[in-house]
Amino acid sequence: MEKADVGRKILSANETYALKNKQLLARHGKRCFNMISSPGSGKTSLLVRTITDIGGSLRIGVIEGDLQTDLDAERIRATHAPAIQINTDGACHLSASQVNRALDQLPVESLDMVIIENVGNLVCPSAFELGEDGKIVVLSVAEGDDKPVKYPGIFAKSKVLLVNKIDLLKGALVDFDLDRVRTDARRLNHSIEIFPVSAKTGEGMQAWYDWLKNQVHPQ
Amino acid sequence: MEKADVGRKILSANETYALKNKQLLARHGKRCFNMISSPGSGKTSLLVRTITDIGGSLRIGVIEGDLQTDLDAERIRATHAPAIQINTDGACHLSASQVNRALDQLPVESLDMVIIENVGNLVCPSAFELGEDGKIVVLSVAEGDDKPVKYPGIFAKSKVLLVNKIDLLKGALVDFDLDRVRTDARRLNHSIEIFPVSAKTGEGMQAWYDWLKNQVHPQ
Repeated sequence: MEKADVGRKILSANETYALKNKQLLARHGKRCFNMISSPGSGKTSLLVRTITDIGGSLRIGVIEGDLQTDLDAERIRATHAPAIQINTDGACHLSASQVNRALDQLPVESLDMVIIENVGNLVCPSAFELGEDGKIVVLSVAEGDDKPVKYPGIFAKSKVLLVNKIDLLKGALVDFDLDRVRTDARRLNHSIEIFPVSAKTGEGMQAWYDWLKNQVHPQ
Repeated sequence: MEKADVGRKILSANETYALKNKQLLARHGKRCFNMISSPGSGKTSLLVRTITDIGGSLRIGVIEGDLQTDLDAERIRATHAPAIQINTDGACHLSASQVNRALDQLPVESLDMVIIENVGNLVCPSAFELGEDGKIVVLSVAEGDDKPVKYPGIFAKSKVLLVNKIDLLKGALVDFDLDRVRTDARRLNHSIEIFPVSAKTGEGMQAWYDWLKNQVHPQ
């Protein structure tokens, strides 16, 4: 009982900050997405290419969550997009209060959208709302096609699934059944948008850019 | 303060069970390793190939941790090795009490070694001792060579680092600097044993098998 009560209290404090973040973003009319994946699925590379390719037509700011380095924020800043690094000091997910402090440091009013790159972890971050409009789950084909079945929580909750590193499918270097992933992800979440992409070669990225732009300027 | 106290209490309960597991395994003279990685780094494939190739010369039993499926234990059982599945019901790591119950169901006395495949997560499992003789961290080259720097905890604590999927390094399909990983991992942990392997092609696996056998029958 004690464990459950404490868990509920922590979640409530997080929810309070998540609501504050949502209200702050709504007041400025800005969109916000929470990007979640395993370590090494290519979240930062996806963001760097997205920001570079989209250019000035969509002003994106980034909040980077990492256990302790600033490496990812530095990569984002090299694109000249504003990026705030949060070091969780070993914690396995970002909290809404950390995001709240980062939003204070971002020039939110001059942006169209904030993308939060969560700590690399396919499990814990899915349980903590940060005030986002939606979650984006990234799965690299190198991780295997059984992930929606094995880690259903994040696939059930996400608006978008980016299946990254599809360049590795060429020549059957990686065994990965994209149809299986589509079927299993849609069984958990029938409205999830699925974009097979390669942040390395650029394949498939345009459909993802169109989706992002449509969030700010609906066609 | 309250959060810190609760954390300490939970860790203590876990440590009590970890000690029980250690004593049980020591009583039978068995070795035990706790395998930790991101989702999709290839832990189960590594175990399946290891058990198949090593055959009867090392009797390995497996405890499989997953959020909710039995897929991994089924893959292990296809090799005829005994495997017990623990479903954590969404929790992001195995606990020592779960492992304690699984050990009760394994024919420990007829084995040489128990390998625990933890939930796919590079962060949380490293904080929970299960009673093992050592941790084995698995990193797939597709995850990138920055992982020891970005997720130092597990690299600092592991006896062995298996760098898996090295077949993807052929033809420079994946940008991965093995020397950088070696240097960064040894900076955190100068005694860590590093084996670059491919569970798919078998490359490099013999050195890992020799290490495993040496744990049971030291040369």
